[in-house]
Amino acid sequence: MTLLVVGSLALDSVETPYGKQEEVLGGSASFFSVCASYFCPVCIVGVVGDDFPKQHFDFLQQRNIATQGIQKRSGKTFRWRGCYEQNLNIAITLATELNVFADFSPSVPKIFSQSEYVVLGNIDPVLQLHVLKQIERPKLVACDTMNYWIKDHKQNLLKTLAHVDLLSVNDAEARLLAEEHNLVKAARAILRFGPKILTIKRGEHGVSLFTKDTVFSVPGYPLEHVVDPTGAGDAFAGGLMGFITQKKASSIEILRQGIVIGSVMASFTVEDFSLNRIKSLTFAQIRARFREFHDLTGFGANDLPAHSFGDVS
Amino acid sequence: MTLLVVGSLALDSVETPYGKQEEVLGGSASFFSVCASYFCPVCIVGVVGDDFPKQHFDFLQQRNIATQGIQKRSGKTFRWRGCYEQNLNIAITLATELNVFADFSPSVPKIFSQSEYVVLGNIDPVLQLHVLKQIERPKLVACDTMNYWIKDHKQNLLKTLAHVDLLSVNDAEARLLAEEHNLVKAARAILRFGPKILTIKRGEHGVSLFTKDTVFSVPGYPLEHVVDPTGAGDAFAGGLMGFITQKKASSIEILRQGIVIGSVMASFTVEDFSLNRIKSLTFAQIRARFREFHDLTGFGANDLPAHSFGDVS
Repeated sequence: MTLLVVGSLALDSVETPYGKQEEVLGGSASFFSVCASYFCPVCIVGVVGDDFPKQHFDFLQQRNIATQGIQKRSGKTFRWRGCYEQNLNIAITLATELNVFADFSPSVPKIFSQSEYVVLGNIDPVLQLHVLKQIERPKLVACDTMNYWIKDHKQNLLKTLAHVDLLSVNDAEARLLAEEHNLVKAARAILRFGPKILTIKRGEHGVSLFTKDTVFSVPGYPLEHVVDPTGAGDAFAGGLMGFITQKKASSIEILRQGIVIGSVMASFTVEDFSLNRIKSLTFAQIRARFREFHDLTGFGANDLPAHSFGDVS
Repeated sequence: MTLLVVGSLALDSVETPYGKQEEVLGGSASFFSVCASYFCPVCIVGVVGDDFPKQHFDFLQQRNIATQGIQKRSGKTFRWRGCYEQNLNIAITLATELNVFADFSPSVPKIFSQSEYVVLGNIDPVLQLHVLKQIERPKLVACDTMNYWIKDHKQNLLKTLAHVDLLSVNDAEARLLAEEHNLVKAARAILRFGPKILTIKRGEHGVSLFTKDTVFSVPGYPLEHVVDPTGAGDAFAGGLMGFITQKKASSIEILRQGIVIGSVMASFTVEDFSLNRIKSLTFAQIRARFREFHDLTGFGANDLPAHSFGDVS
């Protein structure tokens, strides 16, 4: 019941209104795997250069994450430099150095080729499909993507999406992919591309889940101290997919709870730079915040009158 | 237990991607009172010109709304012309003709001076306070405002807010009023200005409720056909305050349900121009959509494991 994720491992340099960090652990696979590791065994397929600090490997292994699928290549690790201004919903990319990621050809270790739960992190959709072909009988395939692939590689992305069960995008990406501003209509269009499950992230406003027959929405956790939003989407997907893998199920009820768990993991992640907050995160804290989400959103349904005022019809 | 509202009655000319309407019923008091009238008796304090169509008066009276407080002045009724582009969250004002509204001096009819629930619609905060002074012993005073009053009349607004129990603003207005980007911090700052209850509207993303001790959030209803967002905020406040007035209570539980009822009324309002959708709205439809909000947001809280994977501590 291992959850396999292919994605980037990066060294991020980030500046936000709350501070600045140089070359800290980043990348979609890092955020995803660490958050999922609270719920199930995780295996990363990725690539790093020979400058990737040993302490990051140690951290992944401490979290029981299998690192055999991380190729070590001579050269430099993928680097991203970005900043956020007052509006923390919008990342501004200042520099991207692909380095060893430029020629990345993901290879799934034989012992993980029977993984039933697979996450295709935000990489070239051609590589996403290439990974998928190495998995024998995946039970549920999740996928993330971004505006770059939607705009400039749409045909390749659509080929990959035909094999995807769960797609996770933000609202702007959903609108771009469906070429439709209304999110409900956009969701319906995307569900026709292949995925049976669609999660649309709305930044600080929360997340919505769409399937053919249902919609579920959870608001954002009311955070007073957002330090660095980097990785929030991957942390969300990690919590969601970790829970699905643990339950070996993706019923609507499991998906709803998984969306909340994903929101919990994202809300902790943004409280500090990189994965720093997660390093000290206990499962009791996860459980407590899950209950807080219940309190945040719950309301009684019994006090509504039977009739309109002044009208007994 | 009459709910008294002071606000504008207007003739709106609106263009959205879904069509165009000329001189239809608009104004904060119209949207508010019609939506509240499903829950309690409502009395409007406002002003119209001698060109205000009789059919609009008839409509308000059909909904059991007391119109004695609507002054009729010679001259033209307040007119607003606006449009919405693809992003329906942002209204673009093309023209505002104050007309008889320019010299409006609100006067509360004697028989309504004992109203316990009062709503100060989005007008000059000096007039809002002037209305409040005419009410003998209000039990709960709600207030709406907008960026214009926050930016250019802040001192007057703060004087009024000192007498307000419930303030309803959107997220941009909350940030502007508190001079703070983080919404949780902004909410806390606003609660220090006087209101004990704050609702922050997030457009299509829903609404949040803040009190000193609690936060409650409800997502937006997933609407496929938003025709005209005009009046959504007033419809929301009408549903919320109508329910509070009916229950004669503002406990957290009543507020939570009221926020959902407000969201229901707003979601219907935007389905057509002006108050057209509300004209055919039944209470059974309100109840059904309230239940849909319950389905939209509910999740179980029992399936979470007791411990982290690989960790029994």
